[in-house]
Amino acid sequence: MNPELAVETEVPGALALRRVGIDTYQENVAFLHRACPLYLTEGFLALARIEVRANGRSILATLNIVDDEAIVGEQEIGLSEPAFVRFRVAAGTPVQVEHATPPASLPALRRKIAGERLERADYLALMRDVAQHRYSAIELAAFVVSSGHFDLDREEVVFLTEAMVEAGRRLDWRERPVVDKHSIGGIAGNRTSMLIVPIVAAHGMLIPKTSSRAITSPAGTADTMECLANVELPFARMQEIVHELRGCLAWGGTADLAPADDVLIAVERPLSLDSPGQMVASILSKKIAAGSTHLVLDIPLGPSAKVRSMPEAQRLRKLFEFVADRLRLTLDVVITDGRQPVGSGIGPMLEARDVMRVLNSDPRAPADLRQKALRLAGRVIEFDADVRGGDGFAIAREILDSGRALAKMNAIIDAQGRRDFDPENPALARHAFVVEALRDGVVTSIDNERLVRLARLTGAPKVRGAGVDLFRKLGDSVRAGEPLYRAYAEYSSDLRFAREWARHASGYTIGDRFETREFAEF
Amino acid sequence: MNPELAVETEVPGALALRRVGIDTYQENVAFLHRACPLYLTEGFLALARIEVRANGRSILATLNIVDDEAIVGEQEIGLSEPAFVRFRVAAGTPVQVEHATPPASLPALRRKIAGERLERADYLALMRDVAQHRYSAIELAAFVVSSGHFDLDREEVVFLTEAMVEAGRRLDWRERPVVDKHSIGGIAGNRTSMLIVPIVAAHGMLIPKTSSRAITSPAGTADTMECLANVELPFARMQEIVHELRGCLAWGGTADLAPADDVLIAVERPLSLDSPGQMVASILSKKIAAGSTHLVLDIPLGPSAKVRSMPEAQRLRKLFEFVADRLRLTLDVVITDGRQPVGSGIGPMLEARDVMRVLNSDPRAPADLRQKALRLAGRVIEFDADVRGGDGFAIAREILDSGRALAKMNAIIDAQGRRDFDPENPALARHAFVVEALRDGVVTSIDNERLVRLARLTGAPKVRGAGVDLFRKLGDSVRAGEPLYRAYAEYSSDLRFAREWARHASGYTIGDRFETREFAEF
Repeated sequence: MNPELAVETEVPGALALRRVGIDTYQENVAFLHRACPLYLTEGFLALARIEVRANGRSILATLNIVDDEAIVGEQEIGLSEPAFVRFRVAAGTPVQVEHATPPASLPALRRKIAGERLERADYLALMRDVAQHRYSAIELAAFVVSSGHFDLDREEVVFLTEAMVEAGRRLDWRERPVVDKHSIGGIAGNRTSMLIVPIVAAHGMLIPKTSSRAITSPAGTADTMECLANVELPFARMQEIVHELRGCLAWGGTADLAPADDVLIAVERPLSLDSPGQMVASILSKKIAAGSTHLVLDIPLGPSAKVRSMPEAQRLRKLFEFVADRLRLTLDVVITDGRQPVGSGIGPMLEARDVMRVLNSDPRAPADLRQKALRLAGRVIEFDADVRGGDGFAIAREILDSGRALAKMNAIIDAQGRRDFDPENPALARHAFVVEALRDGVVTSIDNERLVRLARLTGAPKVRGAGVDLFRKLGDSVRAGEPLYRAYAEYSSDLRFAREWARHASGYTIGDRFETREFAEF
Repeated sequence: MNPELAVETEVPGALALRRVGIDTYQENVAFLHRACPLYLTEGFLALARIEVRANGRSILATLNIVDDEAIVGEQEIGLSEPAFVRFRVAAGTPVQVEHATPPASLPALRRKIAGERLERADYLALMRDVAQHRYSAIELAAFVVSSGHFDLDREEVVFLTEAMVEAGRRLDWRERPVVDKHSIGGIAGNRTSMLIVPIVAAHGMLIPKTSSRAITSPAGTADTMECLANVELPFARMQEIVHELRGCLAWGGTADLAPADDVLIAVERPLSLDSPGQMVASILSKKIAAGSTHLVLDIPLGPSAKVRSMPEAQRLRKLFEFVADRLRLTLDVVITDGRQPVGSGIGPMLEARDVMRVLNSDPRAPADLRQKALRLAGRVIEFDADVRGGDGFAIAREILDSGRALAKMNAIIDAQGRRDFDPENPALARHAFVVEALRDGVVTSIDNERLVRLARLTGAPKVRGAGVDLFRKLGDSVRAGEPLYRAYAEYSSDLRFAREWARHASGYTIGDRFETREFAEF
C-alpha cells in the first residue's frame, strides 16, 4: 500500500477509430471491446455516454461493449455508421476517449422534466445540444414527453422554434418575398405542392420548395416528385435551379435545416406524440431555416384528419400566427376540408399521375385536387405586392389552363434530372385487388386513417408503384358490386395482408344520404 | 399491371439466427443486412420493432440495419448478446421474422403518457410486457417520466407493485416469518445488512437476504460481501444455505425476481428519476417476490441524503406502510440519522473491513455502524412472536458480543465460498492521497453526495480496493493539517482526477461549533 502521491505519468490512451457498419439512425453508438484496456480502467458502465475526440472534432455516443473482435478490436473504438459519418474523421486515426461531459443544457432538460418553464437561453442551449446529438434517446424521450405534459406556453413555443432555427443552417435567398406552402398533413393524397410550385414559379415568385420523405404517410412530396425527377440534389445545384427557374421540388435533406427537428421527430414518432407546440416549432423552424419570408399553411379539418374540430383548428391557427408573427414570418393559415383524401391516388406513382393529369388539363384529373391547388396557389400569389387581394385564384387558374404551369414543371423536371414517367401508363405495382360496395347507396364517410394505413401495407412509399386508387368520393352514388377503390402491391405477402385488412374494414361507409354540409372555410 | 388476384404462394422467408457479440444491456437489438431479401420486402423502417420466432418462443427487438457481412449475413438475423440469451434458441436455427404486434398493454401505456390513471388490469398487462422486454427504451422513458409527472396515487402504487411481483418469479420459503431489512440508500457506508443477517440468523429467524450490486453508489451489499465470499450462487445452492444456516448474503440476480423493476431502473437511472411511487414499488416488489413476510425499512434523513426533510420522510413512510399493508407485508419503517456516512469506509474492501471489525468486537470498529446495526437487527428480531416489544436491541447485542454473530458469518462465508480476506491487511488499491483540514475547529457538515462521487471517481466498486476511509465524523475536533480522510485508487488517472476533484471541495465543512441536535427518531 503506497499511502502517498507516487503518481506515475501514464501516456493517455489512444485507440484507433473503426467504422462499424451498423445503422443506428439518429443515435450515435460507440463500441469498445470488453478486453480493451481503456474500458477496464475507466469504469465505463453499460450505456455510458462517452466523448470521442480527434483533430479538434468531438462526438458523443452511447457505449456498447462488444465481445467479438470481428466487430471491434481491443485497441480500437468503433462508431456506428451515422456516428462515423457525423464525426468526419478517417478510420484508423488515433482518437481520445473519455466520459462525456454532460451536455451544457442538461440542467435545463432536467428542469423541463420537472415541469418548469424554460427561458430563451435554455432553449437555445438545448436545441444546440440536441442538434449535435449530445443526448441519448432516453433523455430525448423524457424531454418531448415533458414538453407535451406541461403544454409549452406560446412564448416557449417561440423560443423553441427560434432555437431550432439557430442550431442549424439558415438560408438567405437575397430577395423578397420568398414564398412557400405547407400542409400539416393527416389526409391522404393532397399532393398540392407539386401544382402550386410550378404555378407560383410561372407567376415569377421565388418558391424554393424543399420537402421531406414520408415518415408515417404513404407518400411525401419528395417521394412523389421522385417518380418524375431526381430530388436528392447537392445544395449548390438546388440554388442554381431556383435562381434560374424561380422554383424547385427537391428533397430537403442535403441542406441541414433545423437538424434538431429531425432528432426530436425520431423520438416523437414511435410515441405518436404531436402536440401543438411541437408541431408549430417543427414546421415553422424548417420554413424559416429554409429562408421563407411568406408561408401559406393548410390545416385540413375532418373526423379522420389530424385536427378534428373547428375550435381545435382555431387554437392551432392562433398559435401558428402568434409564433410566426414574433419571428417575422408572414403567415396565411387556411383551414380546409379534411373529410376525405384529396385527389384519387394514394401512393407516389398514383399521386404523380394525378398531378400530371391536372397540369395537362386532362379530363380525368381529380377536380378536388385541381380546385384546392388553385385556391392555395392563389393565396401564395397574393403575397405579391402587385396582386390585388382576391385576384390570386384567377391568376393561378389562368397560369394552369394556359399550359404555363406545365411548361414550368417540365423545366424543373429537366433541370433536376428527368425520370421516365408515362402518365398514360405509370409503373404501378404488379398485383392488385379491388374493394367493392356491399350495398346500394351513397358514400357517407371515408376514413383517411384507414386508407393511409392500407396504402402503407401495400408497400408505399418504399415501393413507389404501390398504393390505393380511389374511384368514389364523398357523396357519390354507388350500386352494390361497384368498385370503390383498387389497391396495388408488389409482393404477394403485402397484397395478402392488405386485402385481409381491407376486408375487415374498407374505410368507406355507404349510407342512404350524404349531408353535403358545405365546408365553411376561414 | 395485373389487376386481379394472381397471388403467388411464396414460401415464407426464414432466416438463420446469429449471435452478435454486442452487449445492449436491457434492450433487445436485432440486426438485418441491408441486402437481406426480407428487409427489402417487408418495409421495415430503421428502428422498427420486430418479432423473432422459433421453437414456440418469441422475442421482440429493435431493428438495426447492417452493411457488414462480418456482423450478419444476407440470409441471417442477428440478435445482440442479451437478446440472444433471453431468446434461448440455438444459433443457426431458422427463425421467422415479422413486424412486431404492438404490446398488448400499449393502449394503457399511451393513456399513462396522456396523464390518465390506470387500473389494476392495466398495470398487470404493462409490467408483463415490460418484464418480457416488449418495449423500447423510448417507450419506457415516456412511461417513467409520465408516472413521475402525474404522481401515481397510492392505489396505483399498489397496482404497480403487485404487477411487478406478478410479472416474475415469487419465492415461497414455506415457513413464517421470513424477515428482511432494506435501506433506501443515499448515504455512504451504511453497510448494516452484513451485520444484521448474521445476528438475526443466529437468533434463529429465516433471513434469506439477496442484494444488488451498486448501480450509482460506490458499493452495494453484493459488492462488499464479494470481498469475503462468493455471492453469485445458483439459486438452488442459495436455498440450501438458507435452510441450513437460516440466512445468506447472496447476489439476487440469479433468482429472476421482479424483472420489470430492473428494466425500469435501467431507464430511470440515466434520467436521475426516483419518484416516491417508483421507489416504493421497486423496493417492495423485490422483497415480496423474494418471499419476505416481514421487513424493516431504513430511511436515512439528512441534508445530503435521499430524503431531506422530516415531512418528506413521513410522506414516504406513509406510502410504504399503505402499500405494504395492502399487499400483506408486515413493515416497520425506521427513520434514521442520514447527516453523514455510517461507518468509516466507503468502498467494498474498506466496508468489508469495518464489518469484520464490528463482528470481531475490534476496538477500531466504527461505533455508529455497530450501534445502527444493533438497533435495526433488534427491530427485525422483534418480528419474532416470542420476543417482547423493546427487547430486540439487547438480544442483538448479546448475540454480537458473545461471538455468535461472528460464528454465523463465518459459516455463511464458508458455505457460499470463502475468499481470502485479512481484516488486518485488506487488499486496498495501491495509490492514495490524504485530504487534510485547512483550519482548526470542529466538523460541522459532511456531504454524502460529494463523498459518494469521490469514491466512484477512485474506481469503486469495480475496483474493490478503491474508495475513501474517513478519519473524522460530525462533531469531531480537528486541527489544521490533520487528516480528514484518505482516498485509495488503483490507476493513476483515477487518482489524479479524484485528487483534483477533492481539492475543489472536500465534502467536509469545518466550523466553530457543531450543534449536536440529537437526531430524534420515529
